[in-house]
Amino acid sequence: MTYCVGVNLKSGQVFASDSRTNAGVDNVARFAKMRVFCREDDRVIVTMSAGNLSITQNVLSTLELAARNDPQALGLWTATSLFEVARLIGDTVRQVKDRDDKYLRAENVDSSASFIVGGQIKGEKPRLFHVYSEGNCIESSDDTPYMQIGEIKYGKPVFDRIIHRDTSLSDAVKCTIVSFDSTMRSNLSVGAPIDLLVYEKDALRVKIQRRLDENDGYLATIRRDWDKGLLDVFGALPANPWL
Amino acid sequence: MTYCVGVNLKSGQVFASDSRTNAGVDNVARFAKMRVFCREDDRVIVTMSAGNLSITQNVLSTLELAARNDPQALGLWTATSLFEVARLIGDTVRQVKDRDDKYLRAENVDSSASFIVGGQIKGEKPRLFHVYSEGNCIESSDDTPYMQIGEIKYGKPVFDRIIHRDTSLSDAVKCTIVSFDSTMRSNLSVGAPIDLLVYEKDALRVKIQRRLDENDGYLATIRRDWDKGLLDVFGALPANPWL
Repeated sequence: MTYCVGVNLKSGQVFASDSRTNAGVDNVARFAKMRVFCREDDRVIVTMSAGNLSITQNVLSTLELAARNDPQALGLWTATSLFEVARLIGDTVRQVKDRDDKYLRAENVDSSASFIVGGQIKGEKPRLFHVYSEGNCIESSDDTPYMQIGEIKYGKPVFDRIIHRDTSLSDAVKCTIVSFDSTMRSNLSVGAPIDLLVYEKDALRVKIQRRLDENDGYLATIRRDWDKGLLDVFGALPANPWL
Repeated sequence: MTYCVGVNLKSGQVFASDSRTNAGVDNVARFAKMRVFCREDDRVIVTMSAGNLSITQNVLSTLELAARNDPQALGLWTATSLFEVARLIGDTVRQVKDRDDKYLRAENVDSSASFIVGGQIKGEKPRLFHVYSEGNCIESSDDTPYMQIGEIKYGKPVFDRIIHRDTSLSDAVKCTIVSFDSTMRSNLSVGAPIDLLVYEKDALRVKIQRRLDENDGYLATIRRDWDKGLLDVFGALPANPWL
């Protein structure tokens, strides 16, 4: 399983992904699900993926190969809009599935694959897209400034309470870690290390990119303080009047 | 959608269900999903259901009719073990599906239907079962003393943090309401009123049965205090050291 989240704030963007993949609980491995395509002062494109690992890897490898073989054609490094990048990724999901899908279906292997695509291309504001497994895409809005893929439900309530377009990058990082904590507690197949990336609006370079492993001090502090805080709040709630 | 939860503690049991059903978001109605079969000093059986409303209603009506037509046969009022009741419900799910399933499938209507069955029959300790849509069942254990059906994920993290076999009935009611709050915030198709039932071990009668509507004072207090408490805890978490 996978959990990835991208947040599009007035001040910039936060991306985080876990790094656990599994083909059954007896075959768990680590693969980074976040990829960064950065040319300073020109573009920062961040992709995160969920679903069939061969499909999602092949999509990105296909795009990279295409850009190498024909550097002038519309691609990751030539697109003038993140919307074009999201559609390119969607088209490539369809192309890879056209090639592989019938063989996967024949073995009842799930070929679904979805992406979060964010960042900024010079001349545009930062944007954030969700590319569905069918290849279509939607963009985040002021009302819903975050996108999740994979095991989304356990980590969603805290985003619904905390995140607005005006939230600071620092609070968004905190919220993201709390969201991962909730997800990792309730779904064993989502696990550390967490890949975290912070992009500051108009910087056109990556501000922070870190891998938080299970022993990371800040991750451990947030997990402990959040758990203790929740138990304290719960303890302070009034007892029901009927018992 | 539906959310139902049953908790089996050392001191007794707590049951809660929402009452919203929908056939599409434009066709939302209220139906109680909790049923109680009680004969004081002999048995308290509580059922809650999720899934296709015609299947779940027909299952209980079939069981009631069978008990009326043949009061001596194994049924809701003659079973000597809650395990028998859970299996009867499973058998009846299969029977109703045998009758209706092919007609529903022909129209792509989902015929899945699951139950939580709890309570106590004299001579046994209180027990709690989850009857799956396939008709098989599992029983709650000391390690996992609660069962959920329907829209389970948003409300699960708080149970994972709070509920143990030793938790008091009062805390379990609080936790249940917090769990419903999280679920109702994140999934519009789960909504108040909430049907709540508390059973005290060995009482062989219902201690508390209440319907909490949206204006219920205690529900509103818990929702407000929990929200404020979470925001306070979040605000007090240390800022990340990298930003």
